[in-house]
Amino acid sequence: MSSVNPTTLESSDSERNARPLLHAQYITLQGLLNLELGGSLTDVTVAYETYGRLNAARDNAILVCHAISGDSHVARHDDKDDPGWWDIMVGPGKPVDTGRFFAICPNLLGGCRGTTGPGSINPATGVPYGRDFPAITVGDMVEVERRLLDALGITRLLAVVGGSLGGHQAITWATRFPDRVQGVIPLATSPRLTSQALAFDVVARNVIRRDPHYHSGQYYGEKRTPEVGLAIARMIGHITYLSREAMKKKFDADRLQPRNVPTEFEKIFSVGSYLGHQGDRFVERFDANTYIVLSMAMDLFDLGSTPARLAEILKGASCRWLVVSFTSDWLFPPEQSRDIVNALLANRVPVSYCNVQSACGHDAFLLPDDFPVYGEMVRAFLDNLSGKPPVQIGDENGEKHGPTSIFHQLRLDYDRIVELAGTGSSVLDLGCGSGSLLARLKQQFHRHLVGVELDERKILACIHRGLDVIQADLNKGLGAFASGEFDCVVLSQTLQAVADVEGVLSEMLRVGRTCIVSIPNFGYHRLRRMLAEDGRAPKSGGVLRYEWYNTPNIRFFTIADFEDFCRDKKIRVHKQIALDTEAGREIFDNPNLNADLAIFVISRSEEKAD
Amino acid sequence: MSSVNPTTLESSDSERNARPLLHAQYITLQGLLNLELGGSLTDVTVAYETYGRLNAARDNAILVCHAISGDSHVARHDDKDDPGWWDIMVGPGKPVDTGRFFAICPNLLGGCRGTTGPGSINPATGVPYGRDFPAITVGDMVEVERRLLDALGITRLLAVVGGSLGGHQAITWATRFPDRVQGVIPLATSPRLTSQALAFDVVARNVIRRDPHYHSGQYYGEKRTPEVGLAIARMIGHITYLSREAMKKKFDADRLQPRNVPTEFEKIFSVGSYLGHQGDRFVERFDANTYIVLSMAMDLFDLGSTPARLAEILKGASCRWLVVSFTSDWLFPPEQSRDIVNALLANRVPVSYCNVQSACGHDAFLLPDDFPVYGEMVRAFLDNLSGKPPVQIGDENGEKHGPTSIFHQLRLDYDRIVELAGTGSSVLDLGCGSGSLLARLKQQFHRHLVGVELDERKILACIHRGLDVIQADLNKGLGAFASGEFDCVVLSQTLQAVADVEGVLSEMLRVGRTCIVSIPNFGYHRLRRMLAEDGRAPKSGGVLRYEWYNTPNIRFFTIADFEDFCRDKKIRVHKQIALDTEAGREIFDNPNLNADLAIFVISRSEEKAD
Repeated sequence: MSSVNPTTLESSDSERNARPLLHAQYITLQGLLNLELGGSLTDVTVAYETYGRLNAARDNAILVCHAISGDSHVARHDDKDDPGWWDIMVGPGKPVDTGRFFAICPNLLGGCRGTTGPGSINPATGVPYGRDFPAITVGDMVEVERRLLDALGITRLLAVVGGSLGGHQAITWATRFPDRVQGVIPLATSPRLTSQALAFDVVARNVIRRDPHYHSGQYYGEKRTPEVGLAIARMIGHITYLSREAMKKKFDADRLQPRNVPTEFEKIFSVGSYLGHQGDRFVERFDANTYIVLSMAMDLFDLGSTPARLAEILKGASCRWLVVSFTSDWLFPPEQSRDIVNALLANRVPVSYCNVQSACGHDAFLLPDDFPVYGEMVRAFLDNLSGKPPVQIGDENGEKHGPTSIFHQLRLDYDRIVELAGTGSSVLDLGCGSGSLLARLKQQFHRHLVGVELDERKILACIHRGLDVIQADLNKGLGAFASGEFDCVVLSQTLQAVADVEGVLSEMLRVGRTCIVSIPNFGYHRLRRMLAEDGRAPKSGGVLRYEWYNTPNIRFFTIADFEDFCRDKKIRVHKQIALDTEAGREIFDNPNLNADLAIFVISRSEEKAD
Repeated sequence: MSSVNPTTLESSDSERNARPLLHAQYITLQGLLNLELGGSLTDVTVAYETYGRLNAARDNAILVCHAISGDSHVARHDDKDDPGWWDIMVGPGKPVDTGRFFAICPNLLGGCRGTTGPGSINPATGVPYGRDFPAITVGDMVEVERRLLDALGITRLLAVVGGSLGGHQAITWATRFPDRVQGVIPLATSPRLTSQALAFDVVARNVIRRDPHYHSGQYYGEKRTPEVGLAIARMIGHITYLSREAMKKKFDADRLQPRNVPTEFEKIFSVGSYLGHQGDRFVERFDANTYIVLSMAMDLFDLGSTPARLAEILKGASCRWLVVSFTSDWLFPPEQSRDIVNALLANRVPVSYCNVQSACGHDAFLLPDDFPVYGEMVRAFLDNLSGKPPVQIGDENGEKHGPTSIFHQLRLDYDRIVELAGTGSSVLDLGCGSGSLLARLKQQFHRHLVGVELDERKILACIHRGLDVIQADLNKGLGAFASGEFDCVVLSQTLQAVADVEGVLSEMLRVGRTCIVSIPNFGYHRLRRMLAEDGRAPKSGGVLRYEWYNTPNIRFFTIADFEDFCRDKKIRVHKQIALDTEAGREIFDNPNLNADLAIFVISRSEEKAD
């Protein structure tokens, strides 16, 4: 949420803002803007910057939305320019590749960096709005952005991208103007703030409002402004943007060696000098009323308190989505991004999701640390949206095999699963790896294909391929998916690596009208002999190539065991195919002895459904 | 850290404190108190309350230390009395059973509830100390407590118990006055604050100091005091005492329905009205300077930034320890309690530890929610300290068997392990369950016995038995233990349930000079036949009694496999015993076929040690 890199004290932010925003353009949107909470504004001015060129088809525009303390200067315009707040993301050759795309970044409505806000002159009075500035919402911000794009002659955006409050705007673009957005990328965001995050905002506003120099918001022109209140609000913010781990790394070693910065705030501990410095720098470039107005808009942003309500609100948002959260973000915790993803899945909207492993907290989306993961995901998603051919990644022959993938040979089982899944149906692939099976199914014009995977690199590979993939742990259930949502759910060579076998099967049978499960058969004669004759744990090629002590396979069972299980649990077996994959042929004679792999087509027993 | 129950708005706190502390006694410790940071105080007054009776032997006294906002009124003195801040813990029949123990709770040095603090009259000036109150440390607080006990004629405490800053005092008692304490119970505490927690304190102090009514601390007698600053400091504190989950439960549903409380703070959201109310109530009973003085003492509390330094500082603290943390405590996160435990283990000090599963955050130690776990642990620990015979719990015959325990029959393997472990040695039992094996070893006068277990109930059972047990996940390594720390490390019937086999074995071989590993043998003829002849996954009694889909056993291997493993990994096998536990006899002929269990005595190969 901070727009400056919080890992350096020597932030270039203050120097930058001592100068005006050199490259900002200004536009006044003539006329009345009726606001969602009842007020109105006239002739709103918007400060914005653009990067790259709008192409002739006018279909390469990407809107970049900033968070609470950002501005229009998202990136450098050239080597001599001041740093932007998201230089890693926007620029030539960057994920938002300004060699190909036309990026637009406006300062928010209510802001203090060029766009109309509480510090702007109220045309009705000739003095700054101050406390008369009306309460605004994220919807109002997005409406202003829409009018800006109208003025620029852009009717359709390739994408909207933003983190935190920027993510709230991206989501709102998708819900309000679904026809004008091809894809949205909300990072480190939420359907609404947690009560904890809300509480920090409440405290921050109380601190500002109870500053004796606040003067009920009419402090413009006064000798002193609520600097102390704003600085302290910023300090609170800073703590919440960093993870505990990041703060430990930054301040634990030299705890009692405060940095040599001029500040009147407490300077006993290194973390104190840092916060004091950050607070002091912030008041040089930011307005207290803007902080109140924007934080209130964020606090009021609310896509519903229940999954059903959230799904309802996201109903029409049918563009493509890439949702990214960060594991150590405790201000906008990953489960909130997951709520958005679940609602989109319930609406059958194309979405990919990754909870990026990170130690950086909420600020992760602004920092280089995890950029190789989330940056590349944004790049792959935008490339795919814009029709750029995907980077060639390994198919089933070349693909590296992880614990949940199978043989080094031709995927005989995939051929059969593709046949069994039929055409034109919706398919959920659990443990989809890099998307080899889904890519095959996609060629058959399946209309709704979703993969579930745990590995970040494999998820990236799926996004490169233009597949929709959700990061999730199968053992935690398929709560994201509605009952009977898919014609077919596939669990290919994964059951033997699953801790909660009953749970996973029960969940897939709930979600899929039909399920296809392929399993390695420990009853295969070669494996039996290893135990019976050699007295050793069975081992083979493919998924069974590991040693007993390092195998990801933690369930040891045979075709007969699985048949018994289905009978006991009242699971209906529609079809059963046994293969000897080494010989490359189907087995009809005593599969439990002669097959090394079996494919079951199963569903909830009809007796039970009655 | 808050001393009031934060789950109710209708806190009885304000009513209570409108009245003076009826039961407080006051004592003046005549003379000079030289402080650790250089200042001094004279004739310090201490307010304290006592519960129960000191016995003739004067060996039943328990010191209860309060946290930043507490006072001497830890519990009701009778039914008509005002509630205390820890009524669940202290009282007749409670864990700190005042029917048996003599509990003493003093208000802290620097406090504002009767003990000398910044609001007390400075004898040198005749007016309150204010900013002239010297900086104090936790060590100074404990020194005052010691002098109080001297005055009361108590030379030795049965125990010191406290949470948060109260925990800091308990730890300090153990390090400063090891001869005067039999046991210490630090709850929800740390060797020093995290940089994140420190940062919140810095912000809180800045808010108070920058309140225009603070007057550099000389606000006593002024019309207005730094009420706003103190209230906001309290709000920040409150957020950090609750977990995100707890706040969600409390405020998510009625987010936009503020509670009807009179407060001048923002009242738009329910969480805001709550915080405003808490802030307002706090200033009625608390002093801003005390908040600054105590929070600074807490921030300066530092037992070292490295494990080695921490172990050094805790060196002499040889009393018995019960350390408790709470999973959702993000202000004093569990890993910090674990650091204390690791240091104690490194010093071979008797310690038990549990990270109690909780949704309540830092305040968990004051709340009833998880009391059935942590309260009972405190009770069991105190009972044991005071020599009360432990509650009879199941021994190896009656004990309920969890995933890591073994047969329903007589533990033949235990007999052999007890023999192999010898006498007089130190033993670490990994996956110790309810402590049956350790209890047997204890009878043989082993001098240093430690168990490691994951299950809270089993840990409680061990504490009841007076055993030292550490809650830990074996898969995460044995970082707590020094290389070669134990003569013998036992892993009994657990390896087959371990994910990281190599890691666990490597760690136990590092920590133990000798290791005893007992394993079920999947090469046992009956199990072989199940796969070879029936084509079914092997199943048996004891640890092998589960179905393939719900067994906690995730490693399938034979005696021969384990022998191969030891050879490959250069693990030296000193002795090998094979048993047919059903027949109740040792097997000498072809153990891999005829034994269902094997016990290996192993160590790091000498070749490798060279």
